[in-house]
Amino acid sequence: MKALVYEGPEALVLRDVPDPLPGSGHAVPPGQPGGTDTLITVKAVGICGSDMHAYLGHDERRPAPLILGHEAAGITADGRRVTVNPLVVDANCPFSQSGRTNLSQTRQIISMPPRPGAFAEIISMPEENLVDVPSDFSLEKSALAEPLAVCWHAARLGQPEGKSALVIGGGAIGVGSALSLLAQGATHVTLVEPNAARLAYLQDQPFDAVEPDKATGFFDLVVDAVGYEGTRATASAQVMPGGTILHVGLGSGAGGLDIRRMTLQEVTFIGTYAYTAQDFRDTCAAMFEGRLGALDWTETRSLADGPQAFADIRAGRVAAPKILLKP
Amino acid sequence: MKALVYEGPEALVLRDVPDPLPGSGHAVPPGQPGGTDTLITVKAVGICGSDMHAYLGHDERRPAPLILGHEAAGITADGRRVTVNPLVVDANCPFSQSGRTNLSQTRQIISMPPRPGAFAEIISMPEENLVDVPSDFSLEKSALAEPLAVCWHAARLGQPEGKSALVIGGGAIGVGSALSLLAQGATHVTLVEPNAARLAYLQDQPFDAVEPDKATGFFDLVVDAVGYEGTRATASAQVMPGGTILHVGLGSGAGGLDIRRMTLQEVTFIGTYAYTAQDFRDTCAAMFEGRLGALDWTETRSLADGPQAFADIRAGRVAAPKILLKP
Repeated sequence: MKALVYEGPEALVLRDVPDPLPGSGHAVPPGQPGGTDTLITVKAVGICGSDMHAYLGHDERRPAPLILGHEAAGITADGRRVTVNPLVVDANCPFSQSGRTNLSQTRQIISMPPRPGAFAEIISMPEENLVDVPSDFSLEKSALAEPLAVCWHAARLGQPEGKSALVIGGGAIGVGSALSLLAQGATHVTLVEPNAARLAYLQDQPFDAVEPDKATGFFDLVVDAVGYEGTRATASAQVMPGGTILHVGLGSGAGGLDIRRMTLQEVTFIGTYAYTAQDFRDTCAAMFEGRLGALDWTETRSLADGPQAFADIRAGRVAAPKILLKP
Repeated sequence: MKALVYEGPEALVLRDVPDPLPGSGHAVPPGQPGGTDTLITVKAVGICGSDMHAYLGHDERRPAPLILGHEAAGITADGRRVTVNPLVVDANCPFSQSGRTNLSQTRQIISMPPRPGAFAEIISMPEENLVDVPSDFSLEKSALAEPLAVCWHAARLGQPEGKSALVIGGGAIGVGSALSLLAQGATHVTLVEPNAARLAYLQDQPFDAVEPDKATGFFDLVVDAVGYEGTRATASAQVMPGGTILHVGLGSGAGGLDIRRMTLQEVTFIGTYAYTAQDFRDTCAAMFEGRLGALDWTETRSLADGPQAFADIRAGRVAAPKILLKP
């Protein structure tokens, strides 16, 4: 099959690789073949910030050569249209048994060894990771299930019913968080984004999208979908006394929070990562029922154009929060 | 009356000041006399870390000359034995109306203008701030209600039932947090304290008290009762994936947290401050019923010896986590 292979920093090459075999994706624990895995012909796969991070050579967990990509939807060998939960967890892990599958310390994700990613024509996944897509719902939009599940999970941890929210960052995670907060009952969501082209692109969404200095005052919830010192400083300055920061960005590892204010004003900070298996299913249901909006904020390119897409994202030339590649 | 007056950095003087008049303590909003306030003859008053902070000239909210002290118990003019909630809040504040009185932005505390503190023979307080003390319970131990309420509130936010906990710091807030966590159902509490004399003093308490490098592994809850970069680094390294840091210390204003780990492992950080009026009453009930232990970790001195007590605490010469002064 053809796959887009990461061969080193800023080097992506579309080339022939061996087809995966059913069960070749290695079920947990590593080394035991997952004989029940299903082959899926990929029809759409999103480019994530973590793919960009790896592409730049900044992720030691993703050494070259490697097939990146983990936001996939496609068709099984028996013709079912499915979207794919890329997190593979051991059901016997204590975290899994308490329902918090995202915390499993033995979790695997496609695009990280030993599991190859989805910038490819075919992937191999356990059957329980597949969610059927209704016949009237596009497979391209279905490929948004994974980033939206990250957002749905983050929003859920903030218990947004009846609350106001500020979302920092207009990438897919910021946009998905704003939509998830509204779907889960937030009264009003303001999203801030400094890139003028991205901001213009987001004007027709069901939340307010404004320049960063236009969002003033306090908010019950603040989602930091960027995760650098500056955005954390904004989050800890603009969260309401007694309010909550949902921190889903992985920009930098430390600094920025005004911990004195957070202590005196009883602010909660929740680091949020990935999603549970139930969150993934709930997100799919919300998406299929239209509760997450029109999902019209993507741009589609061919898998062969992947290297150019990465270069364009890196240069800030892409207005859409998400590029989908079609093998 | 006699009062211990803070007259400038490291200058405390016992001298005569005018007696307070009933209602002189200024009910909220400031400037409107609280005509219903009650006079209390102080029988015991604790020295808090925030008193030490002010004594060193580090608290701009507490300018000299000022009577410090806010952890008081005593006897009303009509002979009732009471302990005192020193936080005075406007019942009409939106935070008060949602039960989160500690978040009221117009809250006042005795020892901060316009309300004089309790290192004095007499204080004036609203009737609703008083909790009656059972006849068989000492007024000295009752003066621990305020710091214990801070701890009770922090523990409550961590939902400790069935959880393991690490408490960083063996001062009154650390000790009170350990006791509150156990009273609220924590399965096991380990407290770390670097001062050898303090550590030896705490060996008979119902929690494990050990040197910092003796507490290894992960804990569902970590209470940072110190609040410096180093203790926050420990907290964010030793909290369980999916666990919670309760941050009740006010040592430094920023830094120390491993935010990358907190995000990837879904750690929650809760800044916690003061207590609600209900927390204060619940703490008193727990204290009176013996659920917070023997409360035998105090040392009592006369109010006249207050200046020496401050100097001894500052020099690290006090093994007991709490010094109580008796006017």
